[in-house]
Amino acid sequence: MTSTCLNLHRLHLPHSDCCSCLKLQTHTMGLVYLLQIDEEVAKLLELKARLGGDDGKHQFVLKTAKGTRDYNPKQMAIREKVFNTIISCFKRHGAETIDTPVFELKETLTGKYGEDSKLIYDLKDQGGELLSLRYDLTVPFARYLAMNKITNIKRYHIAKVYRRDNPAMTRGRYREFYQCDFDIAGQYDAMIPDAECLKIVYEILHELDLGDFRIKVNDRRILDGMFAVCGVPDDKFRTICSTVDKLDKMSWEDVKKEMVNEKGLSEQAADQIGEYVSMQGGMDLAEHLLQDQKMSQSKQACAGLSDIKLLFSYLQLFQVTDKVVFDLSLARGLDYYTGVIYEAVLTQAGVASVTTEAQNGAPGSTEESVSVGSVAGGGRYDGLVGMFDPKGRKVPCVGVSIGIERIFSIMEQKAEVSAEKVRTTEVQVMVASAQKNLLEERLKLTAELWNAGIKAEVMYKKNPKLLSQLQHCEESGIPLVAILGEQELKDGVVKLRVVATREEVSHTVDIHTSRAL
Amino acid sequence: MTSTCLNLHRLHLPHSDCCSCLKLQTHTMGLVYLLQIDEEVAKLLELKARLGGDDGKHQFVLKTAKGTRDYNPKQMAIREKVFNTIISCFKRHGAETIDTPVFELKETLTGKYGEDSKLIYDLKDQGGELLSLRYDLTVPFARYLAMNKITNIKRYHIAKVYRRDNPAMTRGRYREFYQCDFDIAGQYDAMIPDAECLKIVYEILHELDLGDFRIKVNDRRILDGMFAVCGVPDDKFRTICSTVDKLDKMSWEDVKKEMVNEKGLSEQAADQIGEYVSMQGGMDLAEHLLQDQKMSQSKQACAGLSDIKLLFSYLQLFQVTDKVVFDLSLARGLDYYTGVIYEAVLTQAGVASVTTEAQNGAPGSTEESVSVGSVAGGGRYDGLVGMFDPKGRKVPCVGVSIGIERIFSIMEQKAEVSAEKVRTTEVQVMVASAQKNLLEERLKLTAELWNAGIKAEVMYKKNPKLLSQLQHCEESGIPLVAILGEQELKDGVVKLRVVATREEVSHTVDIHTSRAL
Repeated sequence: MTSTCLNLHRLHLPHSDCCSCLKLQTHTMGLVYLLQIDEEVAKLLELKARLGGDDGKHQFVLKTAKGTRDYNPKQMAIREKVFNTIISCFKRHGAETIDTPVFELKETLTGKYGEDSKLIYDLKDQGGELLSLRYDLTVPFARYLAMNKITNIKRYHIAKVYRRDNPAMTRGRYREFYQCDFDIAGQYDAMIPDAECLKIVYEILHELDLGDFRIKVNDRRILDGMFAVCGVPDDKFRTICSTVDKLDKMSWEDVKKEMVNEKGLSEQAADQIGEYVSMQGGMDLAEHLLQDQKMSQSKQACAGLSDIKLLFSYLQLFQVTDKVVFDLSLARGLDYYTGVIYEAVLTQAGVASVTTEAQNGAPGSTEESVSVGSVAGGGRYDGLVGMFDPKGRKVPCVGVSIGIERIFSIMEQKAEVSAEKVRTTEVQVMVASAQKNLLEERLKLTAELWNAGIKAEVMYKKNPKLLSQLQHCEESGIPLVAILGEQELKDGVVKLRVVATREEVSHTVDIHTSRAL
Repeated sequence: MTSTCLNLHRLHLPHSDCCSCLKLQTHTMGLVYLLQIDEEVAKLLELKARLGGDDGKHQFVLKTAKGTRDYNPKQMAIREKVFNTIISCFKRHGAETIDTPVFELKETLTGKYGEDSKLIYDLKDQGGELLSLRYDLTVPFARYLAMNKITNIKRYHIAKVYRRDNPAMTRGRYREFYQCDFDIAGQYDAMIPDAECLKIVYEILHELDLGDFRIKVNDRRILDGMFAVCGVPDDKFRTICSTVDKLDKMSWEDVKKEMVNEKGLSEQAADQIGEYVSMQGGMDLAEHLLQDQKMSQSKQACAGLSDIKLLFSYLQLFQVTDKVVFDLSLARGLDYYTGVIYEAVLTQAGVASVTTEAQNGAPGSTEESVSVGSVAGGGRYDGLVGMFDPKGRKVPCVGVSIGIERIFSIMEQKAEVSAEKVRTTEVQVMVASAQKNLLEERLKLTAELWNAGIKAEVMYKKNPKLLSQLQHCEESGIPLVAILGEQELKDGVVKLRVVATREEVSHTVDIHTSRAL
C-alpha cells in the first residue's frame, strides 16, 4: 500500500517518504508495544485473581468496569483547575447551567446518532421503562427545552456521558467521559451566537495555555451543496459526509477508496470532492467559492458561504480571526448539524504530541504542523428540538463541546514533567506537639482554627512524633506548623514554624477563652 | 388500631390523642391528596401523549425517567451555593477528593447492602462484563482503597447514586440523587477521626442555617450487646436491628408488632429492647449503662459504651456537645457498620416541616419537637475494605454522608418564600444601544469587556429596542448597562447606567485601540 502522507498530501509525497511522520511512527509504535505489554500483564493478573488467591477461596476481581477509570486526588486537583477556567469563561459570557439525569428513556435517544446508536448503553429491563445512559449532553438538552417549552436560553452543562466504544484506554479513549457543553438556543440574527461560541473556544484554549491551536470552520450546507454539484446522489449525502469526516484520521487515498469501493461513488465525483476538501482559507475563500462556477450553482452552498462571510466579519470584531480557518474538509460525524460546524485542534508538537498521536492511533494530519487532535467541536443544529416538540416547533440552537478528557491528559502530562508539586489539599497549618500527652490541647487549638475558617489538620494519634508530623507537612505541602509544648502552654503562646525555611515565631493564644489572637 | 404516638410514646398516650400529631396529620393528608391528583393528571397527560397528537403521528413521551428530574438554572444556583458551603468545610478539614465511575462490576456491589440489594440498577448484558449503577459512594470507595492498596486517606466525594426505590418523587425521594460523603480511612487512635466527622456535620448544618438540629449517636456494638442481653438469638441481630431502624418512621407499637409477629421475637425480649431504646442522654448515660446490671454483662456493649464516653470527651474539646445526643434507638440500616453510628435531624418545625413530613410519609418522631427528618448520617465500618482485599487486610474507616437532596428541597423552599430573587447568572454589565446600526460597536465593546475578565452580555439582534435590552437586565438582575449611541461614539465615551437607580455616568473608552479605560 503506498498511501499518501496526510501531512503533505497536497504535495503528493508517498507516506513512507515523509520523515516527520516516520519519526512519529517509530515513537508511537514503541509506545503502543509498551502499552500492549501492559495490557497483557493486566489480563494475566486478572485471570490469576479470578482463579483465586493462595487460600483457595473466591476472590473479587478488583477493577473498574472496562473503559472506565477512577480519578485519584492528584488527577482531581488538575480536573478542578481545568473546570474552574472553563466555568469562569462560560459565566463571563452570561451562561446559566442545568443538569439532567444520567439516563433517559431509550426512545429519547433513538434516531439521533445515526450509525453510532449501537454504542449506546442500555439498562436492564427490571420492570418499568426502558432506559439508556446518555450518549451526549445535546440530545438531553433538546429534550429539556421541548419538555419545558423553553425557546431562549444560554446554558452550559458539564457531566459524564457514556459510549460502548472500542476500548482504547491506553490511548486515552474512555467509555465514561466528561462532556463540557455551552449552547445558545433561540431565534436570533444570523451568526451572532455562532461567533460567540467560537470566541469562547478561543478564550478557553488561550487561557488553558495548551500551546498553539487552530479552529476549523465549515458549514453543513456548503458540504451538501458541494456533494450535489460533484454529482453525489441525494441519498448518499450523509454516508459520504461521514467518510469525509475521517480525513483527520485517514489519508485522502483511503477516504477516496472508501467512497468509491464501499459507498459506490463514481471516481469522477470523488476526485471533484477531493479538490474541494483540500481548500483552506478565510473570508476570501468564501468569496472565491461564491464565484466558483460549479459551487455557485447550489443555493444551499451559497447560503452557507454567505454566512461564513458574515461569521468572519463578527470574528474580526471579536479579534479571533488569527486562529480560525475556513476548511472544506471539516465534516463532523453527527447527524443533527444543520449549519455552521467547527472543530479546534492543537497544533503544537510539544509535550502533548505523544499522547495524542497515540490517541489518534495513526500519525499525520491535515495541518501543516503536527496536529495533536481535536479539543473542541460543535455547530448549529436547528432541527433537533423540533424532533421532540409535539407540534414540531423549532428552536434554533448552536453550541460547542470542549474535549475535556484530552485536555486533562495534556495537563496531567504537563504536571508530571513540571518540577512543581501538585497539592491535593489546601491545608494551611498543621497543629503539632513536640511532647507527649498534649492531644487535648492539639484538638482544642485545631477546633479554634476551624471555627476561624482556617484550613487546619491534626494527627489522629495520642502521641505522634514531631518528625512524623513535620514529614506529613512536607509531603502534602502544608506551609505552616503550629507547635504546642508545656512551656508554650504556660506562656500562653503557640510556636508557628514555616515548614520551608524552619523560621519560628511565637504567637499569643488565649486557649482558655477559646479565642486565637 | 390504637398505636401509641411516637412524639409522646414515653407517656403512653394513644396516637389519636396527640393534638400536635393530629394537626400535622390533617396538614399532611391534604398535601398528599393534592399530590395524588397531580400524579393522576400527569398519568392521563402521558397517556394522551402516547396515543399521539392531533396530527395522528407517533409522538415522543416527553419526560425524564421515572424517579428522576432535571435541575433548572434556579435549582442549579441553589445547588452550587450548598455545594460550595459543604466543599469549603471538607477542604477546611484537609480532605482530598476522588471520583469513581458511575457503574461498577455487578459483583463489586453484591453482598454489601443486605435486603436493599434488590434496589440496584443493572445494565443490560450487551456482551462483556455485567455492570450495575453505584448504590452509594462507600462501596466504590472501599473498592478504590483495596484496589490501590491505600491505607490512609481523608477524602470527600460528591456524586450521584442510583436506587430503584419506591417512586415517591412528590415526597422528595428520587431514584437518582446526590450523595456527599466525607470519610477517614486509616489505623488511628480511637474516636479521634469519629469526633472530627461529627464536628463536620455540626459545622455544615450550622453554616447552611437550616434551623436547629440534633445529632444522634449510638454504636453497633451497643446495639448488638443490647440484643444479646435482651435474649435475641444471634442469627436475628441484623433483622431485629433493621426493625429498630424504623423507629423514626413507625410507632414503637408497630415496631414491636413487627419484631414479635413477623420476626418471631418473644414479647419479653421485645419489651426489654423497648425500655433501652427509649433512653437518650450524654456521657452520663454511657456511664450509667456501664453500671447497668444487664448491659454490663456484654463485653461488646461495654467496649461501645467506653468509646461513646471517649467520643464525648473529644466532642467537648470541639465544642459541639450542645447538639449531640447519645440515643439507643438509633440503628441505621446498612450492614457494613461496625462501631459508632450517627444521624443528624433538623428539629425545627419552621419552613421545612411540610416537605419533610411529606417525605417521611407519616407524622411523629422520637424528638420532643417535630423532627423534619434526617439530613446527615454515617458511622464506622472497619470491615468493608477487607472484603475487597485479596488477603483480607483491613483498613478501618469512618465517614459521614450529607443528605444533600433534603437540604436542596429546604433551600429551594426558603428561596421561594424569601423576597430575594435567585440570580442564575453573574453578568455584571449589558452592552446596549439606543440607536440602530450599532451592532458592530456593541460586539466590539463586549469583546473588550470579556477580554478584561468582565462578565458581559449583548443581545443577538442587529437592532434591539432599548426597552427590551433594559427589560432583560431587570429580569436577570444585571446591575449595569453600558449604552452606546452616535454621540457617545463621537465623544469617545460610553454611558454607564445603574439599572436599579437609573443613575448615569459617562466613561471614556478608546474603542479604536481596543482598550476600555
